[in-house]
Amino acid sequence: MEMELGVFFFNFVILVFAALSAREVEAAVRYYEWSVDYAFVSLDCVEKLAMAINGQIPGPRVDAVEGDTVVVKLTNNLPTEGVVIHWHGIRQFGTPYYDGAASASQCPINSGETFTYTFVVDQAGTYFYHGHFGMQRSAGLYGSIIVSLPANKVEPFHYDEEISLLLSDWWHKSMYEQELGLHSIPPRYVGEPQSLLIEGRGKYNCSLDECSSFHYNCTVDECSTSPDCIPCWPSNPECDPHVIPVHPGKTYRLRLANVASLSALNFILEGHTMTVVMADGHYIEPFEVSNLDIYSGQSYCVLFNANRNPSRNYWAAINVRGRDPTTPTGLAIVQYLPNSANLLPPSPAPVSPAWNDFAASTAQARKYVPRPGLHTEHRYGKVVPKRAAGRTLILLLTQNKIDGYIKWAVNNVSFVPPATPLLAAFKFNLKKISSPPDTPPNFDVSALPAATANINASYGSGAYVFKLGETVDVIIQNGHNLNPDDSDLHPWHLHGHHFWVLGYGNGKFDSRRHSKSFNLINPPLRNTVPVFPFGWSAIRFVADNPGVWPFHCHIEEHFAMGMGVMFAEGVHQLPKLPPPTLGCGLTKPTHL
Amino acid sequence: MEMELGVFFFNFVILVFAALSAREVEAAVRYYEWSVDYAFVSLDCVEKLAMAINGQIPGPRVDAVEGDTVVVKLTNNLPTEGVVIHWHGIRQFGTPYYDGAASASQCPINSGETFTYTFVVDQAGTYFYHGHFGMQRSAGLYGSIIVSLPANKVEPFHYDEEISLLLSDWWHKSMYEQELGLHSIPPRYVGEPQSLLIEGRGKYNCSLDECSSFHYNCTVDECSTSPDCIPCWPSNPECDPHVIPVHPGKTYRLRLANVASLSALNFILEGHTMTVVMADGHYIEPFEVSNLDIYSGQSYCVLFNANRNPSRNYWAAINVRGRDPTTPTGLAIVQYLPNSANLLPPSPAPVSPAWNDFAASTAQARKYVPRPGLHTEHRYGKVVPKRAAGRTLILLLTQNKIDGYIKWAVNNVSFVPPATPLLAAFKFNLKKISSPPDTPPNFDVSALPAATANINASYGSGAYVFKLGETVDVIIQNGHNLNPDDSDLHPWHLHGHHFWVLGYGNGKFDSRRHSKSFNLINPPLRNTVPVFPFGWSAIRFVADNPGVWPFHCHIEEHFAMGMGVMFAEGVHQLPKLPPPTLGCGLTKPTHL
Repeated sequence: MEMELGVFFFNFVILVFAALSAREVEAAVRYYEWSVDYAFVSLDCVEKLAMAINGQIPGPRVDAVEGDTVVVKLTNNLPTEGVVIHWHGIRQFGTPYYDGAASASQCPINSGETFTYTFVVDQAGTYFYHGHFGMQRSAGLYGSIIVSLPANKVEPFHYDEEISLLLSDWWHKSMYEQELGLHSIPPRYVGEPQSLLIEGRGKYNCSLDECSSFHYNCTVDECSTSPDCIPCWPSNPECDPHVIPVHPGKTYRLRLANVASLSALNFILEGHTMTVVMADGHYIEPFEVSNLDIYSGQSYCVLFNANRNPSRNYWAAINVRGRDPTTPTGLAIVQYLPNSANLLPPSPAPVSPAWNDFAASTAQARKYVPRPGLHTEHRYGKVVPKRAAGRTLILLLTQNKIDGYIKWAVNNVSFVPPATPLLAAFKFNLKKISSPPDTPPNFDVSALPAATANINASYGSGAYVFKLGETVDVIIQNGHNLNPDDSDLHPWHLHGHHFWVLGYGNGKFDSRRHSKSFNLINPPLRNTVPVFPFGWSAIRFVADNPGVWPFHCHIEEHFAMGMGVMFAEGVHQLPKLPPPTLGCGLTKPTHL
Repeated sequence: MEMELGVFFFNFVILVFAALSAREVEAAVRYYEWSVDYAFVSLDCVEKLAMAINGQIPGPRVDAVEGDTVVVKLTNNLPTEGVVIHWHGIRQFGTPYYDGAASASQCPINSGETFTYTFVVDQAGTYFYHGHFGMQRSAGLYGSIIVSLPANKVEPFHYDEEISLLLSDWWHKSMYEQELGLHSIPPRYVGEPQSLLIEGRGKYNCSLDECSSFHYNCTVDECSTSPDCIPCWPSNPECDPHVIPVHPGKTYRLRLANVASLSALNFILEGHTMTVVMADGHYIEPFEVSNLDIYSGQSYCVLFNANRNPSRNYWAAINVRGRDPTTPTGLAIVQYLPNSANLLPPSPAPVSPAWNDFAASTAQARKYVPRPGLHTEHRYGKVVPKRAAGRTLILLLTQNKIDGYIKWAVNNVSFVPPATPLLAAFKFNLKKISSPPDTPPNFDVSALPAATANINASYGSGAYVFKLGETVDVIIQNGHNLNPDDSDLHPWHLHGHHFWVLGYGNGKFDSRRHSKSFNLINPPLRNTVPVFPFGWSAIRFVADNPGVWPFHCHIEEHFAMGMGVMFAEGVHQLPKLPPPTLGCGLTKPTHL
């Protein structure tokens, strides 16, 4: 409820600056007031304690126009927990302290505090926000950010209406139990999610075989008296499936984003083909799919025409990809108006490609080609990364054991979030910050890690430091897990930048051989890229955004177990950091 | 892991000052390093996530000698939660910022931070520490503080050995669920505890009738094959009952403290009478009891002689008092050496006075008479409060509804913990701090509160401000709950002071009539006093300790629902507050 005396003025300056620098003079301020609270929710019909914004999961949708300033005044009403909100995909030019990543950009917002995020949404597209402290994302702290084109710009495709769907996964154990389990000896893994959620709705343990349209509306009470009626879809408004009403014949822009804690997902719109037109906020050359892989941290826009038999409804469905799934299909209902939303689709839940068909995944990943001539106003000036890399990192991902704990590590360093945000630590020279190695030790992707690289893994809270404006190549090299013949799929996300995806490959990256295969002609710009099992992914970006930026596996459990690094650039060029972002760790107020 | 640069020096100065000012030149520094973590524990044989210090519940015992300086270097390894530790009964003369009460004395210690508490234990006695942020005490964050007499002082009673027992209650729901339930509409009360714990050990749902000494050692596996063997006492070392080994014929000093979240307890040492010799660290005229009421927040020392039939063992037992109990007796085993600890006492669980026999409770409460001539060195110089009160507060306790939420209120103000610690808010004049009313509105103890006082209840985060050195009388006046004929027992605890208990009474306090009945001859000094249902308790203290001090119901649920006030005195006389105690709310670092 209380606000640091200087913050009003500070934010006002930011806001005016943002408004002046926006390209459209009509750029608006989008103002939100949020309260973060615990809530008892039954998102998949099973009640648990979760974290909600204004009582909602997903939280309130942020709607803005490219160039607008978004202002979110957030009050933390959790009794003892801190909180931060990361604006995933928003680059925070000039406002790195509002990126909302604990240990990187700001101190946690303490219980009872009100903190105001103020930032410009620099590029139209589909984004989302989520908690970025401990495992608060898995507790339900997330929502959509929809950035539209300004009135004087036209989308390079036609649609009549738009729909947004946040996709996620859901556990019945609390985030505290999940996190402690991961940090136990032996570890208690979170396992596969109990449910998959579409717009925060799912059904626990509900096999579609048990349901029929006849039973759709039966309540639990009715079920107890009717042997044919299985309470698979009880009439609980909180966990009724999400309904997507469509008008037959119209074309829809579907904004999809995967905010899952763990799961790579495959999205299917039963009976409809989809035309993919945008990825992570970037226009791409349209292509058609019958099913779409979406890794945690990614977003897509797809077009579809409601041109199927209008006498029935259809499933929108998500299945787990990349892990042997035990979670039933997550289902929503595409309601062909004027059918009832309660008219259950007569078909079984849609089936996705086999979870381990990585050839299909890689093939789809390679299909993304930027659509030239659009977004030419974006920061990089051009779609093609002409500049050769000034610095190349090769980041080896391994499972390691440190003091008996199983950890994830990058070049044998397992990241531990520091108490002092690295942005402040750099800016005020508060401590010596270690720099992790640019390249891994000797390793063998096909061999157990103990044989080579991960003997000497250790904890670290450092950062890679880049020259401002430097072009950086990063090879994210998957390793071999502790179990034989095991390697995970890791979606890697970079804050504060979009990066070009130069290529994917299998096995060990060979610089001489593989860098020749890089796509330097038309690589797509993304903020999240999958690294396939036993494979590598190569990205390039320009370190042109002063700040400290997490680069990490977007699987929340993996980042909690150390799978991430920090990138720092041009921090000393930043003006004063806003006082409300400080106060923790080494940023205590010695002036009082 | 990180420490504010100036804090080493700051604490060093405190420490040297403390050492110099201690009466005994041999005063020592007792140094502890603690880590606060989540832990999966099975204190009553049912696993739950709890908060532990160095993996232990109760946490490590603090052992010190009167005049020693205790230094606790605490690292918060919780992923997202802040934490503080309150040193219950330690007055913190000169170190009010190390009192460990969130919203009063310091900012929460954030995740990853290391914070060092440094304070002098000013008076020999039995004390304890516990979390004082949200409901972290009920999560298991507590332990014992034992302060012994220095070598040149002699206890006014004889004993051969000493034993300490922390008594508490335990819920299977997490503290998050408990707290959210209390703040829900309709409220979900925490209900009676699942178990009572002695030194952190209990047995869930274990009726002693189901147990026999024969079955005591049977394991769950054996039980499954033996129809007579009930797995009431499974062989789980974590929840085996606490064992108190005694040598027949010896005299023991038993140090008892009730750190329960909710429960008033009655302690019984089966077959043994106990001689009560100390209450809340103050010597009292010894008297004998067969059972002892201990309210949450209180401590006692009792003597007993192990003079019973040595061929068997005996129960140490706690039962709930003051609330209609549903929780089985909490049991520990008094092991008469050389009997086996596994020799189960042959008798049923000891029975305490009826839960609602408040006449017995009041009679026992009136028995405490200070033992003159001891502790003459204490701060007040004399046991008898000669000074007449300079200020009198009458604090009415009511259940209220605010915006549909059920709250507890004091003079119609329901306390909400502020984001800025009041100590810093006063010291640096950071905001206007409201002062709640000294007296209640018109009320009727025997009528439903809606009829009179609690129509206009509101939230508040203010403080009563006293002149430094002023003598203050407080009448804590119990009210009528929202349900008919309902009034709770509330144990009220004052930080930073000991107070004289001037008297107890039934019904509405009448100043003219009842103040004449005050015991001004030999009132006992305490830090926690019960307020009986529909009754009042009168206390007096000297506001001579510069700082901000919570005065509140020690039932954690009640304080979480607003049943507390803050007392401030002489704050501007304090030197600089230690920077690590700041950084939250309005104490952000504007100098960086």
